[in-house]
Amino acid sequence: MTRPLTLHPDRLFPSDAGQRDIARRLYADVADLPIVSPHGHTDPAWFATNANFGNAAELLLHPDHYVFRMLYSQGVSLDALGIRNRAADPRESWRLFAQNYHLFRGTPTRMWMDWVFAEAFGIDVQFEAATADLYYDRITEALATDAFRPRALFDRFRIEVIATTESPIDTLEHHQVVKDANAGGEWGGRVITAYRPDPVVDPEFEAFRENLGRLSDLSGEDAFSYAGYLAAHRNRRAFFAEMGATSTDHGHPTAATADLSDAEAEALFARVTGADVSPADAELFRAHMLTVMAGMSLDDGLVMQIHPGSFRNHNLWLFDRYGRDKGADIPTATDYVHALRPLLARYGNEARLTIILFTLDETSYARELAPLAGHYPALKLGPAWWFHDSPEGMRRFRSHVTETAGFYNTVGFNDDTRAFLSIPARHDVARRIDCGFLAQLVAEHRLEEWEAAELAVDLSYNLAKAAYRL
Amino acid sequence: MTRPLTLHPDRLFPSDAGQRDIARRLYADVADLPIVSPHGHTDPAWFATNANFGNAAELLLHPDHYVFRMLYSQGVSLDALGIRNRAADPRESWRLFAQNYHLFRGTPTRMWMDWVFAEAFGIDVQFEAATADLYYDRITEALATDAFRPRALFDRFRIEVIATTESPIDTLEHHQVVKDANAGGEWGGRVITAYRPDPVVDPEFEAFRENLGRLSDLSGEDAFSYAGYLAAHRNRRAFFAEMGATSTDHGHPTAATADLSDAEAEALFARVTGADVSPADAELFRAHMLTVMAGMSLDDGLVMQIHPGSFRNHNLWLFDRYGRDKGADIPTATDYVHALRPLLARYGNEARLTIILFTLDETSYARELAPLAGHYPALKLGPAWWFHDSPEGMRRFRSHVTETAGFYNTVGFNDDTRAFLSIPARHDVARRIDCGFLAQLVAEHRLEEWEAAELAVDLSYNLAKAAYRL
Amino acid sequence: MTRPLTLHPDRLFPSDAGQRDIARRLYADVADLPIVSPHGHTDPAWFATNANFGNAAELLLHPDHYVFRMLYSQGVSLDALGIRNRAADPRESWRLFAQNYHLFRGTPTRMWMDWVFAEAFGIDVQFEAATADLYYDRITEALATDAFRPRALFDRFRIEVIATTESPIDTLEHHQVVKDANAGGEWGGRVITAYRPDPVVDPEFEAFRENLGRLSDLSGEDAFSYAGYLAAHRNRRAFFAEMGATSTDHGHPTAATADLSDAEAEALFARVTGADVSPADAELFRAHMLTVMAGMSLDDGLVMQIHPGSFRNHNLWLFDRYGRDKGADIPTATDYVHALRPLLARYGNEARLTIILFTLDETSYARELAPLAGHYPALKLGPAWWFHDSPEGMRRFRSHVTETAGFYNTVGFNDDTRAFLSIPARHDVARRIDCGFLAQLVAEHRLEEWEAAELAVDLSYNLAKAAYRL
Repeated sequence: MTRPLTLHPDRLFPSDAGQRDIARRLYADVADLPIVSPHGHTDPAWFATNANFGNAAELLLHPDHYVFRMLYSQGVSLDALGIRNRAADPRESWRLFAQNYHLFRGTPTRMWMDWVFAEAFGIDVQFEAATADLYYDRITEALATDAFRPRALFDRFRIEVIATTESPIDTLEHHQVVKDANAGGEWGGRVITAYRPDPVVDPEFEAFRENLGRLSDLSGEDAFSYAGYLAAHRNRRAFFAEMGATSTDHGHPTAATADLSDAEAEALFARVTGADVSPADAELFRAHMLTVMAGMSLDDGLVMQIHPGSFRNHNLWLFDRYGRDKGADIPTATDYVHALRPLLARYGNEARLTIILFTLDETSYARELAPLAGHYPALKLGPAWWFHDSPEGMRRFRSHVTETAGFYNTVGFNDDTRAFLSIPARHDVARRIDCGFLAQLVAEHRLEEWEAAELAVDLSYNLAKAAYRL
Repeated sequence: MTRPLTLHPDRLFPSDAGQRDIARRLYADVADLPIVSPHGHTDPAWFATNANFGNAAELLLHPDHYVFRMLYSQGVSLDALGIRNRAADPRESWRLFAQNYHLFRGTPTRMWMDWVFAEAFGIDVQFEAATADLYYDRITEALATDAFRPRALFDRFRIEVIATTESPIDTLEHHQVVKDANAGGEWGGRVITAYRPDPVVDPEFEAFRENLGRLSDLSGEDAFSYAGYLAAHRNRRAFFAEMGATSTDHGHPTAATADLSDAEAEALFARVTGADVSPADAELFRAHMLTVMAGMSLDDGLVMQIHPGSFRNHNLWLFDRYGRDKGADIPTATDYVHALRPLLARYGNEARLTIILFTLDETSYARELAPLAGHYPALKLGPAWWFHDSPEGMRRFRSHVTETAGFYNTVGFNDDTRAFLSIPARHDVARRIDCGFLAQLVAEHRLEEWEAAELAVDLSYNLAKAAYRL
Repeated sequence: MTRPLTLHPDRLFPSDAGQRDIARRLYADVADLPIVSPHGHTDPAWFATNANFGNAAELLLHPDHYVFRMLYSQGVSLDALGIRNRAADPRESWRLFAQNYHLFRGTPTRMWMDWVFAEAFGIDVQFEAATADLYYDRITEALATDAFRPRALFDRFRIEVIATTESPIDTLEHHQVVKDANAGGEWGGRVITAYRPDPVVDPEFEAFRENLGRLSDLSGEDAFSYAGYLAAHRNRRAFFAEMGATSTDHGHPTAATADLSDAEAEALFARVTGADVSPADAELFRAHMLTVMAGMSLDDGLVMQIHPGSFRNHNLWLFDRYGRDKGADIPTATDYVHALRPLLARYGNEARLTIILFTLDETSYARELAPLAGHYPALKLGPAWWFHDSPEGMRRFRSHVTETAGFYNTVGFNDDTRAFLSIPARHDVARRIDCGFLAQLVAEHRLEEWEAAELAVDLSYNLAKAAYRL
């Protein structure tokens, strides 16, 4: 006996009748706005080649660490789930997922997945052990059709623009293909890149020196001298901008910044490109480079994003066997007030510069980030991120940030995902939560409804376009 | 003129009508479930001797540091309250409590106490100066009756199993008496112990060396050599398991763990068992022993609990005069991400191992604990603890933890109390708050009601039994 | 086309109908209670000279860093707003404010301002670009009338007592004028001072040594010897008390305290009054002086306030051009548990002493401050402060603090403002939020309504009077 799967039209709205009525009205005006996705991790090859996706497990289970980390936490083997294990039968892996779907109760994954099942694939029974095969077949069959090719889904999802994330040593060949398709009238989808220099900025990154060699080759500069290294960045940033990039992104362990003299920087660069880099030197170099990158942003207009505070690859055993991005990155307490001061002393008062700050440490919302963004012209706040990209997480973001930073020092929603099919669901969750938050302000007479209606459109659409210069 | 004392049937449910209706339905199915109390501090002598409790002050005021810490904070003298002062007239102490009962407005103590007064003792007027003597007499008289002996209350409270907490140098003689009573058909109540080795693991514990001597005597091992010390732990753990223990408990100042080589550990052990232990050595030894204990748990199956982050005996003047556990332990900011890594590197991927983490630092819920428990197979999250074992505290726990760790990486409720009569009240508060939280998810269409009904039973009963292997 | 400006009678109450009805009843009894303002930054010269305020920009824009920091964060120039720029046309500055008033949506500034516009000035259209001149003229004209002189507003606002904040080297001449006016029957308003010794306690304060010179002159003691320095404090504290002060206030970077021997203190004093003060010595001296000040409070009965955790003048460029208090002070993570221990070891158990703790780090509410205040007789908790003096901030304060510290270890509301006209609005927000919080407790049957009614009066009026000995 299966149970029906339906998405309630009032989902995620406050259940208080007064607030809910307001939320419904606000949402009605933003539900169908185009999606602006200024930060994410979709694969540009999808849109370049427009090849069909494979089976259900390959699309929805294997790449989604939100899904398999939860299963793993409850003792399900990653091998059995097919993670880095081509020997696993995808249907069997899928069944494991189905049998354990109750683990996701109360999580955003459950909401995103149900949306994908119901809206993207039109399935009308709930996902559980008994329906695992039905799901597997329905999804896998659909994926073989033209309607489920990447470009068709992009159009169907009403994506106005999507940014992927690439490192300076990426050739952006897929973006070139899309650009050509745009120019040739073959397809109108706007797929841009973002400049994420961690692999050539972080001396502790795997293969840092090899990456600098590749950077030299691509830029035609000698990236092993400090001057050449800076020139190489400028060169690649310009190339990325040509390929549509409007932003850079920096995923550092901490928010530390530094502003070294040229002589100090040159000496440090020599040390971190040599053998045996000390952790302190690595941290100082990352810190200095954030300030350098802010300066380049002031020159070339790329919006700067800082994503600090993740302890990457916490589980070494897992990292050795399964690699990066397997759900074992853990947030840490993050200081911004002292850490950002060197950068802000240099560039914080520049109104032409936009630096978007993210956090995995919610304690910084009201204590540090809102006061900083509510003062410095160069700073804005990115949305609730990663683990906090969820109904309760988004509510905490708004309730902790708004009173000091207002709405206009925030930048709309980022889906930040490689789970392409869930993108509309994620934006929909954000719109519903924002409408609910606004509805509460209206119901408590802290805001008028016409203002909330304006804000709903701003939060869903305008702010992202403006902040990211899209 | 006295005021009536009544417990409202809807207490602690959300006041929103839609949510409240759902909460009522969920609660109706869990209200009368047996109590599983896997972690607490009741005195096993109560259940062994089954002697009557004394007077109202002796039972409800003197042992409850939640009560007298609040009175003390407002200038009431501990001597006058009879704390470590046998000269105080218990009736006079009780009157002081009554006169100041308004101080507890808005606190969980007020709710637990009112439940004890109304439900356990059947009193129907409110507690205040004017009713102090009536209360004192009614309670003291009741306590002299058979119906208020410990075993009768245990049965009346529908306790299925209760765990006390003892150190390795405890002889567990009271548990033996209860075990005999169970075996002989005299009484069916299940009272088990838990292995709390702090007095022989923490070199800074009062009388640490004397405790090791006692440990040697009880185990027949030489606890002053590292090998003998480990053997003594194994010996006592086995004995505790025989006496029903299914868990260990570790109350450290921080969550620091370490994984030393045998040679390092042996050298450290020599230092911490010598004179003049340095704070750094003490911390390192505690840290190392957490990893050692996790290894032993993998062998003997005892579930491991870690309770870090309390600054014990913050008030030295009070400690000197009144001793431990007088309400002067204060939570501190606690890191888990770096601190637990050595232990997790060794054992975190063991699905057969269960380590239950607690915190007094709520900022770690969403930032550190939920991400860790939502990834590592060995980790689960204990409930809101101590100061946070309260309606708002429990709500924060659920709303901060669930979206990343789900419900199934949590372990149900712990009452953690020595206030025996309040145990049903505490479990009832937890069940009501959980039903309210689930009702909100249902009312916001984030969960279906049949799922919430399953979860309500899991959170009230099944998860504690499963996690603690009861 | 202008829009009407109205203040909804139910503003800030919960929108749940049941809670709202209770909140309305609770609020009805406290809405018109006199204002007790025990901590703030109004200028005593206003009440001494009773001169008319100038124009709208001068009164409502230039001194309010809540207002211009938000405008600045969005790229509006401080020069154009007239901050430290007498060349700016105040009407033009005011228009800039009006054009950008939407930036304040969702902030407390918006609510305070709307109250000032509607209630203080009787304006009935909303503030926006189109009404900027109407506003400027209406406000500026009103300010020229007798009804808008400081004393008339003080009386109209039903202020029972207001405390300003002065340093030991202030002569308090304005307070003397008010005192004389009181004595002579000219005006009855009670305007007292508070002793804020930071400029002569913090060796890193601008002009610290010059300040000590001035302190010597005013006290007749040699403030460059440690004994004379302490005597000078005693002398000035006595003078402040004569001028009505009932409290001291200490705005330190951290909550660090120390309790040095006389010899240590004397040696430290010699170092910090010499050239080249080290940051560590400066911190230690501030720390020691908190304990010294607590000792003096025990002698002279002045209530002690500690306001730690603000990183002052974070934006050096701005500080150089525009000076202190321009919206660039940023909160930092603040430890209390270790920091306060030296002071508490000496004086924490003194029930005759009142130390009121504030925080800008909300994570300390439930983790540190409520447990400390819920234990130590000398400690009480100040209200949500500065950035957290807002609807959501106040709700977090109550929900995080009450369950451990109760209501009676808190001290009512502080407006802490130099924005005189907003004082009634700020107290009104606090009363409404507190009534809403109490209404939730009543609606969830955690408190009876008669208790909530008592508490509403206590939180709005009685607690501030009692805690500050007013």
